[in-house]
Amino acid sequence: MTTLQECQARDATDPLRPLRDLFSIPPGTIYLDGNSLGAMPKTAAARAAEVVTQEWGQDLIKSWNTAGWFTLPQRLGNRIAPLIGAGPDQAVVTDTTSINLYKVLSAAIAIAKQDAPARRVIMSERSNFPTDLYIAEGLCKAQGFTLKLVEPEEITAALDSALAILMLTHVNYRTGAMHDMASVTAAAHAAGALVVWDLAHSAGAVPVDLQGAGADFAVGCGYKYLNGGPGAPAFLWVSPQHAERFWQPLSGWWGHAAPFAFTPDYQPAPGVTRYLCGTQPMVSLSLLACGLDGFEAAESLGGMAALRAKSLALTDLFIALVEERCQGYGLGLATPREHAQRGSQVCLTREHGSGAFAIMQALIGRGVIGDFRAGDGGVHKDILRFGFTPLYIGFEDVWNAVEQLRLVLASAEWQRPEFNQKHAVT
Amino acid sequence: MTTLQECQARDATDPLRPLRDLFSIPPGTIYLDGNSLGAMPKTAAARAAEVVTQEWGQDLIKSWNTAGWFTLPQRLGNRIAPLIGAGPDQAVVTDTTSINLYKVLSAAIAIAKQDAPARRVIMSERSNFPTDLYIAEGLCKAQGFTLKLVEPEEITAALDSALAILMLTHVNYRTGAMHDMASVTAAAHAAGALVVWDLAHSAGAVPVDLQGAGADFAVGCGYKYLNGGPGAPAFLWVSPQHAERFWQPLSGWWGHAAPFAFTPDYQPAPGVTRYLCGTQPMVSLSLLACGLDGFEAAESLGGMAALRAKSLALTDLFIALVEERCQGYGLGLATPREHAQRGSQVCLTREHGSGAFAIMQALIGRGVIGDFRAGDGGVHKDILRFGFTPLYIGFEDVWNAVEQLRLVLASAEWQRPEFNQKHAVT
Repeated sequence: MTTLQECQARDATDPLRPLRDLFSIPPGTIYLDGNSLGAMPKTAAARAAEVVTQEWGQDLIKSWNTAGWFTLPQRLGNRIAPLIGAGPDQAVVTDTTSINLYKVLSAAIAIAKQDAPARRVIMSERSNFPTDLYIAEGLCKAQGFTLKLVEPEEITAALDSALAILMLTHVNYRTGAMHDMASVTAAAHAAGALVVWDLAHSAGAVPVDLQGAGADFAVGCGYKYLNGGPGAPAFLWVSPQHAERFWQPLSGWWGHAAPFAFTPDYQPAPGVTRYLCGTQPMVSLSLLACGLDGFEAAESLGGMAALRAKSLALTDLFIALVEERCQGYGLGLATPREHAQRGSQVCLTREHGSGAFAIMQALIGRGVIGDFRAGDGGVHKDILRFGFTPLYIGFEDVWNAVEQLRLVLASAEWQRPEFNQKHAVT
Repeated sequence: MTTLQECQARDATDPLRPLRDLFSIPPGTIYLDGNSLGAMPKTAAARAAEVVTQEWGQDLIKSWNTAGWFTLPQRLGNRIAPLIGAGPDQAVVTDTTSINLYKVLSAAIAIAKQDAPARRVIMSERSNFPTDLYIAEGLCKAQGFTLKLVEPEEITAALDSALAILMLTHVNYRTGAMHDMASVTAAAHAAGALVVWDLAHSAGAVPVDLQGAGADFAVGCGYKYLNGGPGAPAFLWVSPQHAERFWQPLSGWWGHAAPFAFTPDYQPAPGVTRYLCGTQPMVSLSLLACGLDGFEAAESLGGMAALRAKSLALTDLFIALVEERCQGYGLGLATPREHAQRGSQVCLTREHGSGAFAIMQALIGRGVIGDFRAGDGGVHKDILRFGFTPLYIGFEDVWNAVEQLRLVLASAEWQRPEFNQKHAVT
């Protein structure tokens, strides 16, 4: 059995431990929901004050030049690049993940129509994050394509001559299961398809090497593991081989080759800049820089490789402790045990409608914050979801989180009515 | 001749004068660029600190419910509604003006295709803000429509049986000329076309009555006259008669009827909520509320009618003073003298390439901030653009601005090399 003391000892010798001090975690809270909204870097409040009071309040429109507002999407894209295996000037930060997916899927469809007009299928996982499926569904209807949904284990066999685009989320939001990006991309390419990756649950959580994998397009989220703040703008990456070839339909002035020439005809800018559209929310965008500071601080401590090793150690420990200490309460494990197939979260299952929502509420009442994702009464059980951000989560946190979970289950306190009140946002 | 003392006297008796104290204007600055980026409400810094430190830093994901993040687009839309003649639950704040235009134009095209399939033209003004034309151009190409561009005086005669959608910006960004929304909408409807209005330079600047005019769709900007902060999210309005009828292609989860059911198929939410797409930037979005506070404070002082009367008085005064005091320096007037045709800005012209850029830079050096829009060497002269926000601009400001302009022109200081250095953003 693992002891609290052993966990404390692991924290004491953890070289990444100082990074925790970069973040503001509320007292009495063990925050295991950084996969939904990353915790606040301590520098964010001062940065927000600077952008609002100085850049907006004092410098006003001059800040477009003096504060570099106009080039911030590209500069932030270049700072995300090392986390996703992108080269310089291949990524931008802008808009939302959904909208960026619309852009890159539109571009991919245009390429597919030109290079392989007989291919008219976009394939994805049935349990992909729904907004990805909604965006793909809409584009398929508009473009005469078919959206085909399969289970993850069916993907390889379904790579056929009708497939134009394989669109996958690297780490599944419900289970934490991770695809092997390189092998899936290679298999899809061998079958003649383009590959679009959604990195919402992997950028900043696991090492990603888009160029190494030969991927075509990618999008990702700024407010989860990148700690950019609530609703922080998202990012988008385009392989250099596609960068100059096609436009995307959200052809706004920020993506124009000469945005201040105010010419009536649209001329896309070179490279990834053409994936910009309209003016970006500068206060929110600026705060993403504070989140990226954390990864740059981790560089001298081993960078993403070290963060990944700690993440796996944290999730291994959580799985082991749950299995040691929470037996007999109907919990299962949705997340793969294989390291190569696991993201940075652990999802515990319980039969649909058997109290998982209330258990999570009771756990949150005890200061351990995860979240709940409803099952469907069929193949998908209800899920208790826990994200582990190695930048600010420690081994003692894991021990304490499991101990609180055990106490919630053992005491049956979760059956109190107060823990079964639904909210608008779950 | 109008004197400085007369202007000071007008400020002293201006009932709207106290509203100026709601804003932070840098000392020594006369800010006549609120049509580009509105000045900062004094409450913005504290609000930013609250959203970052408390809502994000302390309350974390709970804020989706406790701080009302999830419903903020609708709640802000309802606060903008009185400024644009919209009813409750008809407007939302989200994304950018360009992206919102893409959504409503897509919806309008879908309606036109169903109701009047022979109509395949979208018409706009040649001097409309370019991003509007780029978005329309892209959709026309994709949907088999033609984008027809005309001069403003040609619009009425060009309303023909091929026209599906008339897309206009209410107040022109280059000249400050304003369309008669009601009569143009009525004429377009009589000709069988739908009408989409861009309110970027009119929401918060002039009274707008979308429902009274019978308009079909509208979009507008959060960071100009609404004082929402740099790149604040934009708004979108849909006439109730179209609200339930069509979807738009950016079908993300925030526009879903049940966003937390996570079902794989897209079911649009009732009403305008279906025009949402992905997660919004909460810090920037929250600051727009501070800008809207200013308009609510103006309500008891006469509201938009009083603001409009003052705006016209300010722009009348500016035109008169420029004509009294800056004669002989090659300045012309691009903005209509007719009140009914004038927004809340005044645009002075100068021959293309004859120093207007440097004149504006020299004026900015003297603390009078306007902006420059390049002409084309043809019909469009270079423009010195001055926006007048009656919430925080006074009559003495106008006098002083013209005096500084006179001094710049009289001294020829604008010919110094330092004032001719171009920036990335003009």
